[in-house]
Parts: sequence; structure tokens; C-alpha cells
Amino acid sequence: MALLVMKFGGTSVATIEAIENVANKVAAEVRAGHSAAVVVSAMAGVTNQLVSYCQEISPLHDAREYDAVVSSGEQVTSGLLAMALQKRGINARSWQGWQIPILTDRSHAKARIEDIDTEKFKQQFAGNAVAVVAGFQGISPEGRITTLGRGGSDTSAVALAAAVGADRCDIYTDVKGVYTCDPGIVPKAKKLKQICYEEMLEMASVGAKVLQTRSVEMAMKENVCVQVLSSFADAVGSDLKGTLLVSEDELMEKALISGITCSRDDAKITLRKLPDTPGVAAKIFGPLAEASVNVDMIVQNIAADTKMTDLTFTVPRADLERTISIFNKSIKNEGLEGCEMEHSSDVAKISIVGIGMRSHAGVAQQMFQTLADKGINIHVISTSEIKVSVLIGEEYAELALRALHTAYGLDDAA
Amino acid sequence: MALLVMKFGGTSVATIEAIENVANKVAAEVRAGHSAAVVVSAMAGVTNQLVSYCQEISPLHDAREYDAVVSSGEQVTSGLLAMALQKRGINARSWQGWQIPILTDRSHAKARIEDIDTEKFKQQFAGNAVAVVAGFQGISPEGRITTLGRGGSDTSAVALAAAVGADRCDIYTDVKGVYTCDPGIVPKAKKLKQICYEEMLEMASVGAKVLQTRSVEMAMKENVCVQVLSSFADAVGSDLKGTLLVSEDELMEKALISGITCSRDDAKITLRKLPDTPGVAAKIFGPLAEASVNVDMIVQNIAADTKMTDLTFTVPRADLERTISIFNKSIKNEGLEGCEMEHSSDVAKISIVGIGMRSHAGVAQQMFQTLADKGINIHVISTSEIKVSVLIGEEYAELALRALHTAYGLDDAA
Repeated sequence: MALLVMKFGGTSVATIEAIENVANKVAAEVRAGHSAAVVVSAMAGVTNQLVSYCQEISPLHDAREYDAVVSSGEQVTSGLLAMALQKRGINARSWQGWQIPILTDRSHAKARIEDIDTEKFKQQFAGNAVAVVAGFQGISPEGRITTLGRGGSDTSAVALAAAVGADRCDIYTDVKGVYTCDPGIVPKAKKLKQICYEEMLEMASVGAKVLQTRSVEMAMKENVCVQVLSSFADAVGSDLKGTLLVSEDELMEKALISGITCSRDDAKITLRKLPDTPGVAAKIFGPLAEASVNVDMIVQNIAADTKMTDLTFTVPRADLERTISIFNKSIKNEGLEGCEMEHSSDVAKISIVGIGMRSHAGVAQQMFQTLADKGINIHVISTSEIKVSVLIGEEYAELALRALHTAYGLDDAA
Repeated sequence: MALLVMKFGGTSVATIEAIENVANKVAAEVRAGHSAAVVVSAMAGVTNQLVSYCQEISPLHDAREYDAVVSSGEQVTSGLLAMALQKRGINARSWQGWQIPILTDRSHAKARIEDIDTEKFKQQFAGNAVAVVAGFQGISPEGRITTLGRGGSDTSAVALAAAVGADRCDIYTDVKGVYTCDPGIVPKAKKLKQICYEEMLEMASVGAKVLQTRSVEMAMKENVCVQVLSSFADAVGSDLKGTLLVSEDELMEKALISGITCSRDDAKITLRKLPDTPGVAAKIFGPLAEASVNVDMIVQNIAADTKMTDLTFTVPRADLERTISIFNKSIKNEGLEGCEMEHSSDVAKISIVGIGMRSHAGVAQQMFQTLADKGINIHVISTSEIKVSVLIGEEYAELALRALHTAYGLDDAA
């Protein structure tokens, strides 16, 4: 009899009807003799509404208050699902992050889980009760509510699975698994039976919304067996119909490219007329790092005028205003008065990911050629061992995805 | 410089614009040199939505899970108001019930505050920061979230005012104060400048929605100076434009009748063919008391058949299903098989309240005559020292209120 952690995302708990459906799935596992802990997201749309309230009050709001506000959605779902399970005769209770507690660091709005106290939990499993855990949230050393960033409930689930030594962590979502590309944009996208942690990590970090990046990191580190599957299919998790995350050596077939992703969450910033002196990059990026703004793609141009240089980089679109305000301060404090800033949010980051890339040359070149053939201009390029990303105009995103999907032979033959 | 507790109800924080308005009022008090703690309700409509989710899953849901669900609305508002105050340059932070902590008993969904730990709070006031407290919620001895019943944020505010020794507790609401009757039903209703605790207590317990009954009890017991005023008027609380709750000896003018209220929250239950033996009432009401169902008006009829009796009583409409289910069990367990039950929710309880009633005869008679003149049948009567309540058909409620308001000379001359 297995010990399962089951996680249900926002669309899986969007309505009371959907929550009842989730309760049926959990009940089926319990009746099959398994022990289950369930991690839930907020009802679809709720977190967005709460975030927009915060933005409306002030784009530069206190992240501690933001966390108090946005964590409430998961609290609601955890209580409702516990009720729905009780209605089915299943012993269940809700757990908030601070009740367990799920201890995090102090990085409000993007906190990292540091420890989970599982003592009470293990008692629950012994007592055959289902723990319904509010995902996305934890508690700081100061006793303030923290949240784990968008998609953080995945990380809650994987961390919990690691902490209690679960046999599997089933991530129920509104898609049937991990696809080669977003089927909403590329109808010929295929569902993958397996994907290795490294590929999933790259895909998650460049726009595949199916799992939060940190949850994949944690699954890889803690060797948690994760399955991504649909909460709307009839079969329960035990039937293994989704996509399994495995380690590279468990992979049955290594594809050249496993997936193509698109991220519209980035904004591009270009700084012109920067003094080309040692330490200038540190002056720019230091304050951003301090403010926990994740700078992603960075390109420094060799400028015509040898005393000046240009710098282009991307930051999360949500951090754009904050980045501009931080940079305006840096200009004053750091003697960068002559510098000019341009910024744009009309960009998309297209990435190809595949572990097979390691042993094959020409993969990136095929990407550049395919985009060139469609007349798509590339603003910035960045690469890793198993990934190539390009920044292009947002209006070309769908076109680029479809062209690349075909070029790499990923189209579903069916 | 005063220490104020300011409480804002659901309509006062219904939108972000309304929350900004509240922040302006708090900021005005702080800039005038006062210290402030603010207690907030959920945004109007939110709690109703959450309650209906719970009802949809199961009318017989676990009250502990209900509390986890419905307490989330206040969490949101507390965070948003803290942000809005910070935007105005005011040092503020949100506090959840479990963070303070506000310790309650275990009566989930209608918990009573047992203690408030004000140590951290008093440090806050010393540090000149505004504490924004999520109303309505507390924490049980087991560490579960509790709620204080509908309108419980009033009680949170008064309890906090008592605990920190506030100079005044201002209850901001969507009306300008306490009225002789609901102005929505009786346009000639007058705003009272003062009302004594005892009258307010009776009025609150029989349907005047302006304050939660328990908050008035607590204000009376702890001698907290409470003001009810509008959050939509321009003046700030210091201008004393609302209704003040005072003790009887502070009352400047004692009216015969201070107010007339209407409650539509009751359901009537009649039990027929009960055996007329000692202990039968205990058999009926014992299980209801154990389940924390508040039985209000009770009438036992002398039956024609001397071995049988009839019993009529009212319970909160929200508890009707539970009452029926409890009673059906009692019938089996307690040898009451021959008993028949009737129930109705189409009733309204009309009450006249006034401290002057103590020294005047004929007040109740005038009520009965006024209703009789309008052809309104009275189902049940109950009285206290300063109150007379009658249960009538719900369809006659508005007619009864207007007739009584005129009969007791309360109509506004203006």
C-alpha cells in the first residue's frame, strides 16, 4: 500500500463541482488502501484577483502583506476539500502552512522551503486520516505568512513528498501530462511518457507552465518520483497515465529535442552609453540581486565608441517597474548619469530543450535557420548544455513555435 | 493624544477604492497624533460567497473547516489595508488572529474570545505603527482557526479595545449610527445620539444588525466607550458624529422606546403530542444545547388532552436543518415516537426595546393593540425587562414596523 502525495492545481479546484471531483479521486486512492496527503492550489482565478488588488493599491507593495493577501486562496480550497472528503466518510482535515509548520526563508513572495515538521503528519497517516494541505504557503522565522511564488503549490507537494518519504507525488493538472509544446498553440504537440528531471527543469524555467521550476529542482535533488497527469481523466493516479519525471539513466529513449517552450513573462531592458570600465556590470546587477530581481538573459555589446558599451538583459515582466526604479536610483548613486535606458515588454522567449543536444552538433543552428526562414528577428540568444533560448518579438511567438515543432520532427503523426 | 481602535465593516472595505478611503480615515487620526489599531471585516459579499461554498458541499459541514474557509476574507482585507496605509507613509502591518494571538474557546463558527495577548501590540503602539487586525477570527487551544460568528469583527474590535485600554472604539459602518428602526424599511426612522448598553444589547440580539450582540455585551462588561458611525461621511471619528454607547446613568434622556427591530433569522418549530411528563423539555432541549443550537422563544401550550402537550420554539434559521436532524434522533432515543413536528421559516420577530419600559405600564399592550388594528396575528410572545418581542408572519414585517414606529411616536418630524 503506497503513501501518495496528490497535488491539484487551480483549474482542478475551480468550482465546487471540481472540488467534489477531486474528492472522488482522493477517496478512490484511500479506498484502494493507499495513504494520501493532498496539496491544493487556490480556485482558478482567485490568486490573480488577489494579486490585482495588491497591484491596484501599489505596484511597490510590501511583499509581507502581499503574502498575507494571496495565501488566502489556498486556505479556502484546503477547508472545502476537507469537507468534501468528510462527506465521503473519509477522515480528513485541512492544514495551513503555519499549522504544520512549513518553514521557509524570509524571501516573501518567492520564499524557499527550509524545513517541514512532519511529526503531526506522520501521526495523521498512522491514524488513517487524509491531510489536506494549503499549497503555495509557509511561515517565515518571524511568524509571517510567506508564499513560494506562482506555481508554488507544486513545490509544496514535492517538498511534502520528500519530507514524508512518499512513494509518489502525483501532480494533477488540466493537461494530460508534459507535452512537446503547448497544445493550445501547436495542435500537433505530443504527450511525453517520460521526461528526465534536467529537461523538465529547463522546460519549467523557460515557460512550460506545467510545473514550478523549484519543484523540479527539489524532485531531482530529493529523488522524488513525480507524475504529471490530468485531474479530468477518469483513471486514478495508480494507473500511471500521465508523464513520469525520471532520472536521466531511467530514460528509455533519449530524444534530440524533448520540448519547445514559450515564455511571455520577460521584459527586455537595454542600457546604452554605459562606461566600459571594470565593475560596471556589478553596479547594475548588484542592486537588482539585492532586491531579489532575477536577471535572466544578458548580452553585453562591444560598442563602437570604446569608452562606452551597451547592455541588454531580461527581467520578469512583473519586476519591470521595480527594476526601473532600482536602476534610476543606481544611476544617481553609482555615477552612471550618462546612461540611457530602453525597455520593452513585447517580447517572447522561445526555447528548445533536449538532453540529446549534448551529443549532437548543429541543433542551435537549425533553430536560427528555421526562424530566419520565417523572417523572425532574434534579439538575444542564451544557451545551456541542454537548452537554446532566443528572445523574439512577442507577435511572432506562435509562428516560431509551430515552425520549430515541425523542424525538429516533433509533430504528432496521428 | 488618544489610543483608538477603529473597526471597518464589509461595505466600508468592499472595493479597493473603499479601502483607500478607510486608509485616509486612519491616516487622518494618526496625523492628528492619535495611536490606532484597526480591525477589518472581509470585503462585502466575500464571506457570503465562502459560506455558500461550504453549504454547497454539505449543510452539515465540519465547523473547523468552515472556520478555515470563511476566515480568509478578513486576512485579505488586513493585508490590503496595511499596504494602503504604507502607501500613505504610515508604518503599518497586518495581524491574523493566530499571529497576535487572539485566543478563543473551541466553539467553532461561534467562538468566544478568552484572551488577547497584547504584548507585541503594545510594542507596536510604542513604535508608532498601526496594527491592522483581521477581525472575526481567533485560534483555538488546538491551534485551529476559529471564527466569532456573523458580525464577529465588532467583537474583535471591542475585545481589542478592552485589552489595550483604548480611549474609544469607533465602529465604522455603512449607516450614520444607530437608528430607531431600519431606515430602509421605515423612512421616518431617527438616528440616536446615545443609546445605553442594555438597550443596544437587546436591539442587537433581536435583529438590529449594526453591532454583534456579543460585542455589546463585552463593551458593557469592560466599559468600553463605543461609537457607531459612518465610514462614508467626511468627518473623522474624533468629531463624534455617530451614536455613542453609554451606561444607563450617562444617558441624557430616557425614551420609553428607543428602537424597534425586525429579525428574519429565526425559524419556528412546533412539536405536537408530546407526553406531558416531567423532563420532556430537557429531552428536547438538552441535545440542542449540546449541539450549540440557540433556542430563543419558547411557548408550551396547555393541551386539551391532559396527557399530551404542544411546544413551540424558535431557532436560528441557519440551524433549522441541524435541529430537525437532532430532533429526529431524539425521537428514537428518548421514547418520543408519537410526537409530530411542524416547522416554518416564514416568520419575522418584531421587537420593541426601551429602558423606559421598566417604569411604564401598558407598553406591551400598546404593541399588541397596534398589531391587532392592522390585522396581524401574533404566533409567539416573549418579554424581558426592557423588551417585548413577537413572532409574526414574515409578510407582515414591514407593515408592523411602520405601524409600531408611528404608534410609539418615534417618527422623525423633519
